[in-house]
Amino acid sequence: MGTRPSRRALLFGGATTMVGAAAGLAGAAVLAPRGEPGPVLDAHGANGAQRIGFHGQRQPGIETPAPAHAVFIGLDLRRGSDRAGERDALERLLRLLSQDAARLMDGRGVLADTEPELAAHPARLTVTFGLGPHAVGLLNRDLAPRWLRPLEAFGIDELDAAYGQSDLLLQLCCDDPVTLAHARRALLKDTRSLASTAWVQAGFRPAYGSAPDGSTMRNLFGQLDGSANPSGERLERALWGGENLEPWIENGTSLVLRRIRMDLDGWDEADRPGRDFSLGRRQGSGAPLHGGGEHDSVDPGALDELGLPLLSADSHVARALPRGVDEVIWRRGYKYVDGVESGLLFASYQADVEKQFLPIQRRLAGADLLNQWTTPLGSAVYAIPPGCLPGGFIGGGLPEAGRR
Amino acid sequence: MGTRPSRRALLFGGATTMVGAAAGLAGAAVLAPRGEPGPVLDAHGANGAQRIGFHGQRQPGIETPAPAHAVFIGLDLRRGSDRAGERDALERLLRLLSQDAARLMDGRGVLADTEPELAAHPARLTVTFGLGPHAVGLLNRDLAPRWLRPLEAFGIDELDAAYGQSDLLLQLCCDDPVTLAHARRALLKDTRSLASTAWVQAGFRPAYGSAPDGSTMRNLFGQLDGSANPSGERLERALWGGENLEPWIENGTSLVLRRIRMDLDGWDEADRPGRDFSLGRRQGSGAPLHGGGEHDSVDPGALDELGLPLLSADSHVARALPRGVDEVIWRRGYKYVDGVESGLLFASYQADVEKQFLPIQRRLAGADLLNQWTTPLGSAVYAIPPGCLPGGFIGGGLPEAGRR
Repeated sequence: MGTRPSRRALLFGGATTMVGAAAGLAGAAVLAPRGEPGPVLDAHGANGAQRIGFHGQRQPGIETPAPAHAVFIGLDLRRGSDRAGERDALERLLRLLSQDAARLMDGRGVLADTEPELAAHPARLTVTFGLGPHAVGLLNRDLAPRWLRPLEAFGIDELDAAYGQSDLLLQLCCDDPVTLAHARRALLKDTRSLASTAWVQAGFRPAYGSAPDGSTMRNLFGQLDGSANPSGERLERALWGGENLEPWIENGTSLVLRRIRMDLDGWDEADRPGRDFSLGRRQGSGAPLHGGGEHDSVDPGALDELGLPLLSADSHVARALPRGVDEVIWRRGYKYVDGVESGLLFASYQADVEKQFLPIQRRLAGADLLNQWTTPLGSAVYAIPPGCLPGGFIGGGLPEAGRR
Repeated sequence: MGTRPSRRALLFGGATTMVGAAAGLAGAAVLAPRGEPGPVLDAHGANGAQRIGFHGQRQPGIETPAPAHAVFIGLDLRRGSDRAGERDALERLLRLLSQDAARLMDGRGVLADTEPELAAHPARLTVTFGLGPHAVGLLNRDLAPRWLRPLEAFGIDELDAAYGQSDLLLQLCCDDPVTLAHARRALLKDTRSLASTAWVQAGFRPAYGSAPDGSTMRNLFGQLDGSANPSGERLERALWGGENLEPWIENGTSLVLRRIRMDLDGWDEADRPGRDFSLGRRQGSGAPLHGGGEHDSVDPGALDELGLPLLSADSHVARALPRGVDEVIWRRGYKYVDGVESGLLFASYQADVEKQFLPIQRRLAGADLLNQWTTPLGSAVYAIPPGCLPGGFIGGGLPEAGRR
C-alpha cells in the first residue's frame, strides 16, 4: 500500500460531495470510454484498493456503480421509556456507525477492530443509511415524509413480517466478499447495545470486471433487468428531485426494498416465445418485441403487418412504462439465492415514493404477465437522509435542516 | 465476444492436461511476475472471459488458482434394486454432468439451457467431481482406496449428519457469483432424476483482483490461512503422488471437506498476544512468533533470551508442523457465513488421506490452542478421479484403469 497517502490525498483532497469523490477516483486511474472500460487498478494491478468516499452532501451507494455484493440489514432500535432518551440513543448509534462507515470505506478497521487486516481491501465498499418511520420521528417529527409508511397491500403480495419494515437500514455494497463479511460484522457489533437485528438479506450482481462496464445486469430469469434505468439529468431529478418533484429533504431521497421470490422451476417450463411475450422484450438482446435495441424506447402501440399488437398490454414492459415524467425510479437491486429460495432484492431509489414508485407498482400489481412467476415476500420503505461531512454523522443535520 | 474463436483456439489448441491448459491461459494475456500481477483481461478489459479448460488428464479446480466463490454440493444416488442398474445410472449422471461442466466452463449454457445468457462470463469457473465410497464401489470395487471412509471420530467433533458423507461431490468455483448461481442450478437440474441433493455449502475468498496475486488468504479470525501450502515439486507430490506416496489412481487424488464453525464472538474476547500465542504466528504479518517472514520455516524449538520457548508446543503451527516428508496437504478452503454461523469450509487435497492428512489432523484434534474457538460440524472424504478428454467423462476410465 505504498501509494496510499497520495491516493488518499487525491480522493479526499477537495472532494466534499460524492460527485466530487467520484471525479477524484476517476482521476486516480485511466478510465476508458463507456463500453470499453479499463479497470481502476492500484499499484499491484488489483481493484481491491478502490475507495469510494463516505463524506459528501449525498450518501454513497446510491448513484455509485453497484458492486458485486450487497448486504441489506434491518435494525430495530431498543425502545426506551422516553422519546428524548430514544433520540439520544439513535444519535449515538448513527454517530458511531457513520464513523465506522468512513473508516471501513477508507480501508481501515473500525475503532478497536479485532481484525483490521480484513478491512485492508475496500473494493468500492459503501455503507448507506436509511431511516424508517420511527427513526425519522425521533429525529424530527416535522420532517417525516407522507410516503414514509408501509406500502399499501397489493394482491400479489405474500408478505412475511420477517422481511418487513425496520427502524433503520444499513445497505453495504462491496466487490470483495471478505471485506463485506468483515464490515457487516464490525458494524453489527457496534449496534448490539442500541439495536437488534431484524433481518439480514444478502444479494449479488456480476463480479467486478466480469461483464463490460455499463452493461445491464441480468436477473435469475435470464432477463436484462434495469434497461429503463435513467441517466444524466433524468437520474438527477429522479433521485434528488427537480421541477415539480420535491425530495423530503435536500440531498435526501428514498428507498423501497422488496424481497421478490422468483419461481425458477416454473419459469423453466415457459418456452422462449412465452417468456418474451410476458416480458415484452427478447431475453437475449433485451430489445422490445417490436424491434430496436435494448435502450430504444418501448412503443406499447406497435402493430405487426396484420395490424395486431406486438406487445401485450399486460406484458411487464407495457405495464411498467411511465405514464408521465414523474414515473421514473432508479433500480439498484441484487439477486439472491437463499437455500432453495431465489429471487431479487428489488431496491428502488426515488425522491418521492408516491409520485414515482407507486403508480408503476400499482399497475404491475394490477396486471403483469410476469406476476405468475414472482411473489413479493418482503417490503420496507426508508427515508434516505443526506450525506455528512467529516466530523458529522448521517442524520445529524435533520433537526436543523428544514424542507427545502 | 469478438475475440472468442481465437481465444478458444489458444486455450484448447494443444492442451490435453490442466497444466497445459493453464500454460495456454498464461499465453493468452500478459502475466506479470509473481507479486505484481497483471490481471488477465479480455478485449473488454474484463476478467469474465477467463476460461479454464475442463478436459485434461487431471481435473480442474484443484491446482488452478482458487476463485472468489465456491459451492460444494453433496449428492446421493438414488438406490436401485441391483448394482448393474445403479452403476449404469451413475455413469449416465457422470457423463451428463461432465458434458455440462465442459460447456459451462467454456461460457456456454448446458444443453437445453433456459438461461444460456447467464453462462456467458465463465470467470474461471471450474467443476470438480469427487466420488464417495458408494460411487467408487459401483464403478470399480477393486479401486476403492483404504482411506475412502469416514474419518475416525475426533474429540473436538460435533458432527452434524446434514453435512456428512455423500455419494458424489460437485465442487464449483467461480469469480462471478451470477455465473456460479446459474451453473449450480443448471447442474442440479440435470441430477434430479438420478440423485438427491444432500447439502449445498457456499463459501467465499477475496474477489478476483482484490488482493495481490499469490498472497495468502485470511480466515475470518483475521489470520493468514494457508501460509504452509506447498508449491512446485512438493505440491506435485502432495497432490498426485511420487516417491513412496501412491495415489489411488494415476492423476487422481483425494479431498477431505470439513465444515468448521468459528466462534467469532469468543475470538473477539482474546487480545492480540493471546491470539498470536494460540496460533504461533503474528496475525498481522503471519510471521512465526520467533521471527522471520510468513513463509519462513517454523522452528518449534526456538527459545527467547531467557531460554524459554517462543512457540507454545500446543500452538496451532507447532501442532500442525509436518513430522515427516509425507505430511503435506494442499489446502484450498473457503470461508462461509451462513445466517449467524461463520467458519471455514476446510478443503484439503492430498494423494493419500491416511499418510498425509490424518497424522496432522490427529495432532490438532489432540491439542491445539485454537480448538477452543473452532468446532468441526461436517466431514466427508472423496476420491477425486482423473480428468477426462473430449468425448469422455469423469469416472469413465475407472473400470479400465488399474492402480498404478
